[in-house]
Amino acid sequence: MSTPGFLLIGVIGGSTPTPDEAAAAEAVGCGVAEAGAVLICGGRGGVMEAACRGAKGAGGLTIGVLPGISRGQANAYVDIRVVTGIGEARNAIIARTADVVIAIGGSYGTLSEIAYAVGFDKPVVGLGTWTMERVGHPAVPLVRVETPGEAVERALALAAAS
Amino acid sequence: MSTPGFLLIGVIGGSTPTPDEAAAAEAVGCGVAEAGAVLICGGRGGVMEAACRGAKGAGGLTIGVLPGISRGQANAYVDIRVVTGIGEARNAIIARTADVVIAIGGSYGTLSEIAYAVGFDKPVVGLGTWTMERVGHPAVPLVRVETPGEAVERALALAAAS
Amino acid sequence: MSTPGFLLIGVIGGSTPTPDEAAAAEAVGCGVAEAGAVLICGGRGGVMEAACRGAKGAGGLTIGVLPGISRGQANAYVDIRVVTGIGEARNAIIARTADVVIAIGGSYGTLSEIAYAVGFDKPVVGLGTWTMERVGHPAVPLVRVETPGEAVERALALAAAS
Amino acid sequence: MSTPGFLLIGVIGGSTPTPDEAAAAEAVGCGVAEAGAVLICGGRGGVMEAACRGAKGAGGLTIGVLPGISRGQANAYVDIRVVTGIGEARNAIIARTADVVIAIGGSYGTLSEIAYAVGFDKPVVGLGTWTMERVGHPAVPLVRVETPGEAVERALALAAAS
Repeated sequence: MSTPGFLLIGVIGGSTPTPDEAAAAEAVGCGVAEAGAVLICGGRGGVMEAACRGAKGAGGLTIGVLPGISRGQANAYVDIRVVTGIGEARNAIIARTADVVIAIGGSYGTLSEIAYAVGFDKPVVGLGTWTMERVGHPAVPLVRVETPGEAVERALALAAAS
Repeated sequence: MSTPGFLLIGVIGGSTPTPDEAAAAEAVGCGVAEAGAVLICGGRGGVMEAACRGAKGAGGLTIGVLPGISRGQANAYVDIRVVTGIGEARNAIIARTADVVIAIGGSYGTLSEIAYAVGFDKPVVGLGTWTMERVGHPAVPLVRVETPGEAVERALALAAAS
Repeated sequence: MSTPGFLLIGVIGGSTPTPDEAAAAEAVGCGVAEAGAVLICGGRGGVMEAACRGAKGAGGLTIGVLPGISRGQANAYVDIRVVTGIGEARNAIIARTADVVIAIGGSYGTLSEIAYAVGFDKPVVGLGTWTMERVGHPAVPLVRVETPGEAVERALALAAAS
Repeated sequence: MSTPGFLLIGVIGGSTPTPDEAAAAEAVGCGVAEAGAVLICGGRGGVMEAACRGAKGAGGLTIGVLPGISRGQANAYVDIRVVTGIGEARNAIIARTADVVIAIGGSYGTLSEIAYAVGFDKPVVGLGTWTMERVGHPAVPLVRVETPGEAVERALALAAAS
């Protein structure tokens, strides 16, 4: 039997989150798995590790799109370690591959991924992440939420609608 | 629970295989799934599609690392569609990500993937594929086999040993 | 004789600039060339084309790092057409290759390039471009200027200091 | 004035050449520069460095497409250091960017670049490099030559015809 491909939810965020951000990421990962979706992320520490731990705790499947050349870079909760070897250019792959992206906190890598995702017309849900604006440019279509549950709920709805 | 990551077996080959090559690819895909490994390939037609069909027929999991920007490029048997958008440069990602590579027939894309895999010290098993040599250079460490069953068997043994 | 490599100034911005942004880009390109630096950009239209035209008008050298697989994508003022074929992931290459980046207006591609450049610790000068902030995150170290002349002047000073 | 872009000749080969290969690469680089073409290569040592040295000795312009994230990887004869950060995936960029490729000796990286170049329909001239064949596949259209002078001459003719 052929398959239509799995629903992939991207979780992006920094490697040095606050405790609150890490807890939110774990809850988001859990929610992604409970919804039957696959988690895709950058595969490393911080928000990425917390999200993967949450997803695995709920019996989900996790994909880590690693920047370097060693699968040893992956956190311990990544099932499928995609070893790109293309460095931070892999941020574009995460944005292209995910059906929808949830951004939690984050630094410049996260900012680049938000920019890619929006530029690729992917829905983006933000939990305590960047605001970006430019005079004369339309507002960035980032859906801001306050809780992990709301993040997963909105992400699923946006993926279904796109 | 943490996981050590899945065993990923790459199957590479062309998009216009002979009927024998396509049949071999399907049998290899089936064998990969029966061994409990995950199939990773370029996600498109020909050898890639036949291998994915074989893996899905045996209840396996399949990953397609696509060159373009559309998941619609994937054949119907790809579960996880990694949309790289980096064109043929994605061949390096397949070679880096697979634990071991099985090459079946193929054209220049397959040749580039064999070259990458060997250069990255990944074991490569060849079924009716390229021979490459250069005066003064050590022989290419490609393990040649005659049947799909032998290809899977050798690939599993090489992955276990590496 | 060996050489230390050329000074490369990146100019980033959108493909649909306002007339003022295009005029600013042309003046920046002219200033880059007059300073003896090489202009590097995404090689396409809009801000990129205006900057290249300015640089060529002043006798400079221009590099276009193209996303697609055809050199025909380049605007008519690109001397060296780097055909990456890796799509928008090439934004990371522009940010890594430039000694300093000048952002003029722009949309999401420009935003991703600013994020990359700052994340790679490259100095960034902004002329009417994005503002980005996140609660709890240090301010983005983007040097804001008001005129093309100031943009080039600051870029040269920052490159010399880094 | 607009420009049609420069003629770019790629020189590919290994980082540990024999003395004869290094001498050939230097002569090729010299010939490329004397013909008024720009040399593009991987920017590192061995054949790449010898070719760049030859080109600079003849007053030419050199481009190095580096795999890593530091311009310090470049040999001392590279004028324009393109810092890709995408590792060996950059081999695809060299093959896409060059108008014609001259392969001198080389190991697996060179083999991947030959495969890419031929797959992208770029003319390839070989000086003591790989032979590749596969039963049932058309012969690889690689033009074999015996001397550096012949390599440059054939490369220029092929570029003019393509």
